Amino acid sequence: MTQVLLRNEARKRAAPRVDVGIALYGYGTVGSALARIITERAGWLFNTHGIVLSVRHVTIRDAERERVPSIADTLVTRDHKRALSDPDVNVVVELMGGTGPAFGVGYGALASGKHLVTANKAMIAAHGAELEAVAQRSGALLRYEGAVGGAIPVLRVLRTSFATDNIRRVRGIVNGTTNYILTRMSEDGLPFFRALAKASALGYAEADPSFDISGRDAAEKLVILARHAFGTWIPVSKVAIEGIERVSLSGIEAARTEGCVLKLIADARQTGHGVNLSVRMEKVPLDDPLAGVRDELNAIQIDAENAGPVLLSGRGAGGLATASAVYGDLVNCVLRTACW
Amino acid sequence: MTQVLLRNEARKRAAPRVDVGIALYGYGTVGSALARIITERAGWLFNTHGIVLSVRHVTIRDAERERVPSIADTLVTRDHKRALSDPDVNVVVELMGGTGPAFGVGYGALASGKHLVTANKAMIAAHGAELEAVAQRSGALLRYEGAVGGAIPVLRVLRTSFATDNIRRVRGIVNGTTNYILTRMSEDGLPFFRALAKASALGYAEADPSFDISGRDAAEKLVILARHAFGTWIPVSKVAIEGIERVSLSGIEAARTEGCVLKLIADARQTGHGVNLSVRMEKVPLDDPLAGVRDELNAIQIDAENAGPVLLSGRGAGGLATASAVYGDLVNCVLRTACW
Repeated sequence: MTQVLLRNEARKRAAPRVDVGIALYGYGTVGSALARIITERAGWLFNTHGIVLSVRHVTIRDAERERVPSIADTLVTRDHKRALSDPDVNVVVELMGGTGPAFGVGYGALASGKHLVTANKAMIAAHGAELEAVAQRSGALLRYEGAVGGAIPVLRVLRTSFATDNIRRVRGIVNGTTNYILTRMSEDGLPFFRALAKASALGYAEADPSFDISGRDAAEKLVILARHAFGTWIPVSKVAIEGIERVSLSGIEAARTEGCVLKLIADARQTGHGVNLSVRMEKVPLDDPLAGVRDELNAIQIDAENAGPVLLSGRGAGGLATASAVYGDLVNCVLRTACW
Repeated sequence: MTQVLLRNEARKRAAPRVDVGIALYGYGTVGSALARIITERAGWLFNTHGIVLSVRHVTIRDAERERVPSIADTLVTRDHKRALSDPDVNVVVELMGGTGPAFGVGYGALASGKHLVTANKAMIAAHGAELEAVAQRSGALLRYEGAVGGAIPVLRVLRTSFATDNIRRVRGIVNGTTNYILTRMSEDGLPFFRALAKASALGYAEADPSFDISGRDAAEKLVILARHAFGTWIPVSKVAIEGIERVSLSGIEAARTEGCVLKLIADARQTGHGVNLSVRMEKVPLDDPLAGVRDELNAIQIDAENAGPVLLSGRGAGGLATASAVYGDLVNCVLRTACW
């Protein structure tokens, strides 16, 4: 029986020291923030649970990229196979993004019985069912709370608290870049491309923001939300997707005269004919809780039969917020809690 | 190893049928809503987990009160000891409220190895440490998600997702009655006593609303939040408590001219000298997410070092919302998940 995590509560018994080997794939914003958290929380994790996490491999694409906190050269590799064949690696953390090599790493990790923690929404939306199946066979755990809503623990809440209720609908703002752009257009009267440039300058938009703008990123997250809300994997190709490319200041103004604000809303609902998924520009009335979600924030509303609507909001992106979710998954995997 | 709860996923193996005996103490709004949920979700619970919940005893105070859904007369008792001495009772659900008899029942249940699920914030705030200690000794579980924030899964989120982060502050609106009164005063210009009368008529206020009005109810919830955020039990007597008795329409108007709205804010924060708890009327700026929490809704903001602020909001009271949390705890106890 796993202990419930509890802060500041030193171990009652002198539990044996447990060494856990970690392999990190990808060392960009999230990966380096995670390495920092692992270091900073090491004392807490050992005092509370007797666990020591050791990063044994850091697999990178671009050897030249500056690495902070600096990691020993011997740990760094560009060989995707090295960490997977190390028997002392217990958990693989995949933060490379994309679906090709990432899927190979993830599948390989789970097949060899290593837990997989990732924040890769594209890979999970495309290959979630296969990864679950291989995890089921090997007994390894698969976790990806950071893939949706950054620091917002929405997947865990769907899997635990709401698992006993009948969820009717999950609806939210799950892309920080587009929400930032829409907020700046609406509040500052910035034209679309100037708002986009500002999002890029602040690091909210990717180098290639087309996945955000087109609604594709939101659709991938919606597929993952729907899996945990309704139990089925629905391909991204079945999501009715609209982006924000055609938004204009006059459209925003027109919505305002109707007492509304334009938002990119991801919506999954149970209907008589199965689960319906859409990502759409919507006129959201000002008294809707999603209307007040500004800038790069994310928010997800879960509507369940008995609990009624519950809203979760917070930082949907950013290295530290996402890394905090990845670290939570990492520790939960090691403790083998069933908490998601 | 417990299975992760997952909706709509029939049991993979033909798991044996598990019969679980339930004793219900208290059959008011929450108790009767819980009985309805137990009946309605019975098919799901058996198909997913092979579990059958049977209510074996319903202990009531007032035999005359109409009971919906109706329960067999043989189950109903006023004898507090009957259910505790029944070896086939696995989980005691305490929904009587108050601290005296409820504590006797709760302590007795845990001492005899029966799990205890309750929504009784007064009892937990007063006796949480003792109940935890006896649960620890007997190995039974103690759960009370419904005691704070109704359907909002804030305790589980604090215990799981945020357990690996460093929580700095928890702050929120945790009393629906006073928030309803303040909202009606602010939005409709109703004087205090008319707003209170309206809250009573709608069933938001208790027969004796003085615990709500005085801030005592919010303080009890804050003590429980602080336990899960910071790991320590702080007595209610250490909370700096202010109620809403002195609020006036002119005070609300004065706040409005400063771009603020008056809210009753429960606040727990880690300081250099320990954890500080207060319940206070505050002028909340309109761009604070708590400013937009209207009527009987509750909202709790968790501010953690890495995750940043995350807000959870939803129905903080009401029979069905609270019963949904109690039912979630009940099923989680039976599955013995460490998920809270």
